[in-house]
Amino acid sequence: MDVVLGPNRYGKAETRVVRVTRDGDTHHLRDLNVSIALSGHMEAVHLSGDNSAVLPTDSQKNTVFAFAKKHGIGEIEEFALLLARHFVDARPSITRASVVVEEYGWERIRGGHSFARSGTEVRTARVGSEGTGGRESVVSGLADLVVLKTTGSEFRGFVQDEYTTLQPTDDRVLATAVTANWRHRTADADFAGAFQEARRCLLEAFAETHSRSLQQTLYEMGRRVLEGNGGICEVRLSMPNKHHFLVDLEPFGLDNENEVYFAADRPYGLIEGGVRAGDAAEDPAAWS
Amino acid sequence: MDVVLGPNRYGKAETRVVRVTRDGDTHHLRDLNVSIALSGHMEAVHLSGDNSAVLPTDSQKNTVFAFAKKHGIGEIEEFALLLARHFVDARPSITRASVVVEEYGWERIRGGHSFARSGTEVRTARVGSEGTGGRESVVSGLADLVVLKTTGSEFRGFVQDEYTTLQPTDDRVLATAVTANWRHRTADADFAGAFQEARRCLLEAFAETHSRSLQQTLYEMGRRVLEGNGGICEVRLSMPNKHHFLVDLEPFGLDNENEVYFAADRPYGLIEGGVRAGDAAEDPAAWS
Amino acid sequence: MDVVLGPNRYGKAETRVVRVTRDGDTHHLRDLNVSIALSGHMEAVHLSGDNSAVLPTDSQKNTVFAFAKKHGIGEIEEFALLLARHFVDARPSITRASVVVEEYGWERIRGGHSFARSGTEVRTARVGSEGTGGRESVVSGLADLVVLKTTGSEFRGFVQDEYTTLQPTDDRVLATAVTANWRHRTADADFAGAFQEARRCLLEAFAETHSRSLQQTLYEMGRRVLEGNGGICEVRLSMPNKHHFLVDLEPFGLDNENEVYFAADRPYGLIEGGVRAGDAAEDPAAWS
Amino acid sequence: MDVVLGPNRYGKAETRVVRVTRDGDTHHLRDLNVSIALSGHMEAVHLSGDNSAVLPTDSQKNTVFAFAKKHGIGEIEEFALLLARHFVDARPSITRASVVVEEYGWERIRGGHSFARSGTEVRTARVGSEGTGGRESVVSGLADLVVLKTTGSEFRGFVQDEYTTLQPTDDRVLATAVTANWRHRTADADFAGAFQEARRCLLEAFAETHSRSLQQTLYEMGRRVLEGNGGICEVRLSMPNKHHFLVDLEPFGLDNENEVYFAADRPYGLIEGGVRAGDAAEDPAAWS
Repeated sequence: MDVVLGPNRYGKAETRVVRVTRDGDTHHLRDLNVSIALSGHMEAVHLSGDNSAVLPTDSQKNTVFAFAKKHGIGEIEEFALLLARHFVDARPSITRASVVVEEYGWERIRGGHSFARSGTEVRTARVGSEGTGGRESVVSGLADLVVLKTTGSEFRGFVQDEYTTLQPTDDRVLATAVTANWRHRTADADFAGAFQEARRCLLEAFAETHSRSLQQTLYEMGRRVLEGNGGICEVRLSMPNKHHFLVDLEPFGLDNENEVYFAADRPYGLIEGGVRAGDAAEDPAAWS
Repeated sequence: MDVVLGPNRYGKAETRVVRVTRDGDTHHLRDLNVSIALSGHMEAVHLSGDNSAVLPTDSQKNTVFAFAKKHGIGEIEEFALLLARHFVDARPSITRASVVVEEYGWERIRGGHSFARSGTEVRTARVGSEGTGGRESVVSGLADLVVLKTTGSEFRGFVQDEYTTLQPTDDRVLATAVTANWRHRTADADFAGAFQEARRCLLEAFAETHSRSLQQTLYEMGRRVLEGNGGICEVRLSMPNKHHFLVDLEPFGLDNENEVYFAADRPYGLIEGGVRAGDAAEDPAAWS
Repeated sequence: MDVVLGPNRYGKAETRVVRVTRDGDTHHLRDLNVSIALSGHMEAVHLSGDNSAVLPTDSQKNTVFAFAKKHGIGEIEEFALLLARHFVDARPSITRASVVVEEYGWERIRGGHSFARSGTEVRTARVGSEGTGGRESVVSGLADLVVLKTTGSEFRGFVQDEYTTLQPTDDRVLATAVTANWRHRTADADFAGAFQEARRCLLEAFAETHSRSLQQTLYEMGRRVLEGNGGICEVRLSMPNKHHFLVDLEPFGLDNENEVYFAADRPYGLIEGGVRAGDAAEDPAAWS
Repeated sequence: MDVVLGPNRYGKAETRVVRVTRDGDTHHLRDLNVSIALSGHMEAVHLSGDNSAVLPTDSQKNTVFAFAKKHGIGEIEEFALLLARHFVDARPSITRASVVVEEYGWERIRGGHSFARSGTEVRTARVGSEGTGGRESVVSGLADLVVLKTTGSEFRGFVQDEYTTLQPTDDRVLATAVTANWRHRTADADFAGAFQEARRCLLEAFAETHSRSLQQTLYEMGRRVLEGNGGICEVRLSMPNKHHFLVDLEPFGLDNENEVYFAADRPYGLIEGGVRAGDAAEDPAAWS
């Protein structure tokens, strides 16, 4: 049989780097989780274990720490780009670098150097680079933004097949944990501004949309992010339907007019979708 | 051999109840995880499988939902007490009920009925009751309050034994995930006020104490909670030392003056301790 | 702006179905986690919340349970195919169904109806179908197969850049948690036989290969699976390098000749790659 | 207010040590997670941050690694005792050491040095020592032994209160994840033999007992472990009732005679209990 080496990449995942900067007595804190994946001329190492084109993942980790010192950490998209370009520029055997960064938020307690973790939500960046001057993609996002509305959500008019027992409802709890990602048109966007604006759009669209389905809510959230920022050309969302079932209290002589719910774990609906600006080309590599 | 039945209890764990109340267009949301453990005259069920003294855990779950409707959910300590007293009062075979509640926080997005989960932190209550008029204990707390200070922490003057390689430091990052619990003197305390005050004391003590060790910081946090509220008679804390190691950048020709850290997962230090008002009796059962 | 609906799908995730069958006093047990994702003519629901093409995810869950009864559960690939074809065949609005199944293993304790969970490892299937007679793909696999070798692994001859401090080694511990997936040429393969053979090849290749790098080990594992079964046309693997660092015991006057290791959590190397039969077309949709 | 220092302890948690020994070409592998907690004269460190009685948790970690080399790793109870005694014997300020060890199982693949992780189950030891010649306790155990029986389990004759809707059943699926711990009469027991025997008793009792309640099953499992080994004086078990609900298939025109179940996550019943030899004193400290 003719065996062909398929798609491959390798790198150091989940380097947890914390960077402190000092502005007199006021300290600033950045807390990141950095994952690197490199690909290129990797036939030799796979076929014969010849490592002459392999930059150790340990060196990649060192680079994260050294760059955090040398360059500081600006927006996470910028830090990811710096790293990705470095690996491709420095090594002819590496033709593409993907860098994924998660950032954890902290808020000040009091004084200049004490902090508390804020929220379950994580800010994310996913960068692909074929080196300085080469093709690049930047996808920003957030994960685990958990939202819920106690009304303003219905679900009816759906298909009734032989396995359908669900009753239509014109008033239900809608809850989800939003994972949202948006692709930038260029690699030198205002990432911080885009993040604030995108997050605001997501929350407002969730709150303001009268939901007829989670798909419609998802689309509306994506649309607002896209329309709210001309520098963004595509938005993708993944939203589990975290079911809240109305508890039947009739056996106990009690009514339950949308007051008491059971929050279920599994199974859950999972809605994935997105929107794209009509003038923007697709870029599957940006997302993987 | 003479086999004796040892300590035992049973109940329904982790009932996830969400309660919505409406004040016109303004909705209020409570999101709890309730765990019940009952004990009493349980010899028959263990020794012979005679269930005549066993209230099914399914009925316990139903009771949580029914009480959420009938009584609403006030402070979680009050809801836990209502449940605990009910089980003991209603069933002669049950002599003690323990109810543990976790509460997840939500903040409003905009409008009256949309919410986002706030923080990783969880508010907790642990109640024990031998029935209305009987012995009771109420322990309130919080878990997963993650805090970090970038300076104001030293560690030196410690024991140096043959396995000690740690260097003393007069400036390190100190980070922990606080689990704190405080025992109330009575079962009719101002639980909401105590929580706000305790949380404030914990954060301020962490921020303001120049730390010579995590034990000293823990003690100071506990002391402030205790002294800040005469209705509290004991405080216990569990604080992992979430190590942040300064990265050696010298091989790359870079200094690192407390700027770049590696956040480690395991192993971690674990510091457990507490404080008690000198006039308060110990109550081990309150904590288990 | 011209907003275009992007790729989308929806379905019920993680339906946990357990199926018991009886052969006299000997019972058989199947324990699955089934996730369904459907796509098709979903413009209306996204753009306007018109649900007339939406089969509720609740109905999908019901279908899983009903099919487990009606058809029983054969190999998980077959069960996934039955479900996937049903959704597309039954609903003109659905043009593609993806069904992912995880299966948890159980072994008999004694007697005909008592079982214990076996291993951390999970058997998996991922099926895509455009309906009976349409395009289909079947990918089988396993996840969380944790393996380790205490010798027979080296890593040297790698790139040395300015951030490289790693020392070459000719003898290290190599540990990983294998996720392996293999794509079948047809949808009516001997899935059970292929699984047993693939698993055997993976373990033997790991054990028998003198490893010069994890990439080489990965390639060899994939190659053996591919060559061992003519019905398989592609293999993909994801293998974290679960680092085991030799502890420096010299400060304690002790040598450490590959005896005492620290098993680290993060960061970890992550190696992803695969092999394909030269005569087989690529099929990206099969993997997503 | 008079503030009293309450119970306290500190130590290094979750040191992940892997020990390899060589018998020619046949290698042996031990994989442990070691947690240490020390207590003693710790007033000064809590009240004033005076660390002169504090052995750093970093040194405790080093001791684990050094002892793994110097003494090897016998049974985990023995390794835990070695460590616990060392800390108390070596430091007058330490009056009690608690050492908890988890061990992960590995089985050979083929050849002398390749292994695969076996099972989700973990073997455990919890040792308390006040130093060589002082009071000591040894509790051995296992965790996450997941078992299920497809028949031979009923639940009826229970209390019916106003919140009871559960129907009695004479045939249900019974599933649980066993955490079992047994206390030895002495610190020089045959720990390996006791483990094998205890595990066998637990599995057999689960399989062979016609279950009228999970409490009865738990008691029977504990009783057999206790009676099967004169060196054990107490057994404690914690067993969640992992509910498997029979799915109602009637809406789809299908019966369901104990064939198709939904495996639920939360809530779950939680049964905790134990047995003690009548001639054995209680020893609460052994369990905490």
